[in-house]
Amino acid sequence: MTTATEGKKSRVISGMRPTGRLHIGHYFGALQNWVRLQNAIAPGGEGQNPEKTGHGNAVPLRGEEQRQEYECFYFIADWHALTSDYADTSCVAENTLQIMIDYLAAGLDPLESVIFQQSVIPEHAELHLLLSMVTPLGWLERVPTYKEALENVRDKDLHNYGFLGYPVLQTADIVIYSKEGAPLIVPVGEDQVSHVEISREIVRRFNLFYGFELDEALRSKSAAGLCGNFCLALGIPGNTLSMLDFPLGSEKWAEFCSRVRARILEIGIDNAIEHLKAGAVADMVKFAPVLQEPEVKLTLTPRIPGTDGRKMSKSYGNAITLSETDEEIRAKTKVMVTDPARKRRTDPGNPDVCPVYDWHKLFSTRETLKWAAEGCRTAGIGCIECKAKMADHLIEWIAPVRERRVDYEKHPGRVLDILDEGSKKARKVAKGTMERVREAVFGWQKKRKDVASGV
Amino acid sequence: MTTATEGKKSRVISGMRPTGRLHIGHYFGALQNWVRLQNAIAPGGEGQNPEKTGHGNAVPLRGEEQRQEYECFYFIADWHALTSDYADTSCVAENTLQIMIDYLAAGLDPLESVIFQQSVIPEHAELHLLLSMVTPLGWLERVPTYKEALENVRDKDLHNYGFLGYPVLQTADIVIYSKEGAPLIVPVGEDQVSHVEISREIVRRFNLFYGFELDEALRSKSAAGLCGNFCLALGIPGNTLSMLDFPLGSEKWAEFCSRVRARILEIGIDNAIEHLKAGAVADMVKFAPVLQEPEVKLTLTPRIPGTDGRKMSKSYGNAITLSETDEEIRAKTKVMVTDPARKRRTDPGNPDVCPVYDWHKLFSTRETLKWAAEGCRTAGIGCIECKAKMADHLIEWIAPVRERRVDYEKHPGRVLDILDEGSKKARKVAKGTMERVREAVFGWQKKRKDVASGV
Repeated sequence: MTTATEGKKSRVISGMRPTGRLHIGHYFGALQNWVRLQNAIAPGGEGQNPEKTGHGNAVPLRGEEQRQEYECFYFIADWHALTSDYADTSCVAENTLQIMIDYLAAGLDPLESVIFQQSVIPEHAELHLLLSMVTPLGWLERVPTYKEALENVRDKDLHNYGFLGYPVLQTADIVIYSKEGAPLIVPVGEDQVSHVEISREIVRRFNLFYGFELDEALRSKSAAGLCGNFCLALGIPGNTLSMLDFPLGSEKWAEFCSRVRARILEIGIDNAIEHLKAGAVADMVKFAPVLQEPEVKLTLTPRIPGTDGRKMSKSYGNAITLSETDEEIRAKTKVMVTDPARKRRTDPGNPDVCPVYDWHKLFSTRETLKWAAEGCRTAGIGCIECKAKMADHLIEWIAPVRERRVDYEKHPGRVLDILDEGSKKARKVAKGTMERVREAVFGWQKKRKDVASGV
Repeated sequence: MTTATEGKKSRVISGMRPTGRLHIGHYFGALQNWVRLQNAIAPGGEGQNPEKTGHGNAVPLRGEEQRQEYECFYFIADWHALTSDYADTSCVAENTLQIMIDYLAAGLDPLESVIFQQSVIPEHAELHLLLSMVTPLGWLERVPTYKEALENVRDKDLHNYGFLGYPVLQTADIVIYSKEGAPLIVPVGEDQVSHVEISREIVRRFNLFYGFELDEALRSKSAAGLCGNFCLALGIPGNTLSMLDFPLGSEKWAEFCSRVRARILEIGIDNAIEHLKAGAVADMVKFAPVLQEPEVKLTLTPRIPGTDGRKMSKSYGNAITLSETDEEIRAKTKVMVTDPARKRRTDPGNPDVCPVYDWHKLFSTRETLKWAAEGCRTAGIGCIECKAKMADHLIEWIAPVRERRVDYEKHPGRVLDILDEGSKKARKVAKGTMERVREAVFGWQKKRKDVASGV
């Protein structure tokens, strides 16, 4: 199927909350994928750019054929940090700086991606406010992660208006980077799919209110039959209008429009247009979406448990940050849990249930992997040996990231300059979107033109 | 008591939703009072300005002694119009223009008051977002007008996130015009007092999170006793800290701060400071409110029922707008309801229960009032006569307002220019406030200074 989106570069948008330094769980759960998307070369240009290193600050050497596949927007969600940490914000600025350093060290490149700070772009807040008007409370109350957090988080009071509206703000963050005809892609893990789903619903509703128009001709005296066909085509049960209602006064008209909108929300805009075409009344509607519906790009992330086998998290103290020293890495990995069934050195183990082996898969060479798996299963090697080898590879992997990190850490002013530059770029895009959005909602450009021309 | 607010001009802030042309109910319910506040002369300057006409566009002739008592901010709440009318915004721009004309015609003066449009000041949306983080859901769910609207409004779906957040946006609208040390006054009718009350609560909470600091000395090894006294002074039950907890780690410290905050929220900041002074530990806290708590100025408004005796409302068709013609006024007043007990011309009536007499009180001279009351009670005059006389006075009253209205209506471009000018002024103030607010929440100015100086 040919669509209007062909030929337009897709946009990718994602962000993280500045709650502390990033760890290797963040890297393999998201950052690695962000860098991949940033460095992806559009089809037709593969393999033509051997100098592309895949790491930050390499000057891009692409020609026309070697263009980036995606236009990437990556941000630091400092407003989102407030939804739960409003009571103590003393670390947010420092964390923002640190996470920016992590972004850069991990390979996000300000020449390739727009890297920015959410809270310096007030347009996000403005769109959030507008979206809030059309977002049913029930949708928000039913978000699985919302209910989970209310039940599980005990040390913070999350019963706040802002926390309930988290998905609305997230929607604004994403769709403010809408570009007409360009797919808007959100790379997420499985647990985040429902967030993008609610964003799609909110956008659909917004577009239906502000991007959808019924031809006023349907109000006219002779349009009773046409309106009937219209309702029939959409399957709106029981046309409540009678011949005597035409021409439709503003109240009846508003009621008719609202019933049509409600029905289209039910069946989806694409289906609605198909039905209207089949009923030969499609020319009675104009639909020009104001915002782009975001699409999920499911990220399959490798398993990377914490040193204690639980989910990796700073608060569990089971994580390795991207700035960890060799000594810290050795100390932390030395005490990692392994296959609990392997109690003695002479017991054979099962690498498939061993966190250390999960980490081997990410950092070690093929040879080491084979050595570790076989050695474990045959009790040919001990866990201490196995962990030490894994630590060697982990250190080898982390060294260049950490080196770049240390370098940026020495120049925090430069890092903030880079962030400011990115925010400036992002804001330009956000402003453009808000101009369209404001016009769709309030129509002042049209109004002012009318006023100027004396209409 | 001497307070820091002495000598600073109070600020007045109020707004209306652009839902249609204003009627005389709006005028006597709010606008008249706005104009009065705008024209009030500060104590010490009364009566020294005979040229002050009390009506728009009069060049102010005040000297130093004749300064305005209040700095007034009046706005058109077009975002608020969306909370309930999101599904059809086609009239909001036109209504905004018309309400601005009403403002000017009624006597709001752009040289005396800052008259502006809410939606062109994105800082309101930004503050709304920040306030939303600290606003408990329960506070919003318990607002009486919210519950009432959900129960009574049948033709619109109000179960939206934005509608629930109405009081948060309203709070932002008000307190973004905070000025340190200057009282912030909201003129409201009795039914709106609860809205200002919730604004005060939100501001208090916000100030406590972002304007309140405990001295870090309380964490130190030797501070266990001091902390005990601190808890005692505030009446925090059961000091849960033991000697062994000192010096307080970041978690224990955060917990302590949060308990202190919760307690101060309960007893109020002023009481808290008194208690801390009494306990000789007041120097352990720093409190610098970020936003001003708004104060209610209760407006006693005259009774002005609609022509049918119900509440005056455009949707009931029982209102007289400020642009009504003589003929329309005569036609509408001719069919006004009167004392229902006065069935025949010869029955004596009771002016105290007659809507027409309520209107007489607003528009007629003392002589006419006497004539109407006596004539009614003695059946000396008929209702038709009485209404016609009232209409004469109403027309006399409305004529100059309407004349100004017609004049502005001819120059909508000029009206929009005036509005834009006002919005520019308001935005400057709002930007200033947001700079302070952002610093209080995120502290980037301090952070950047530290970064620049290599801390």
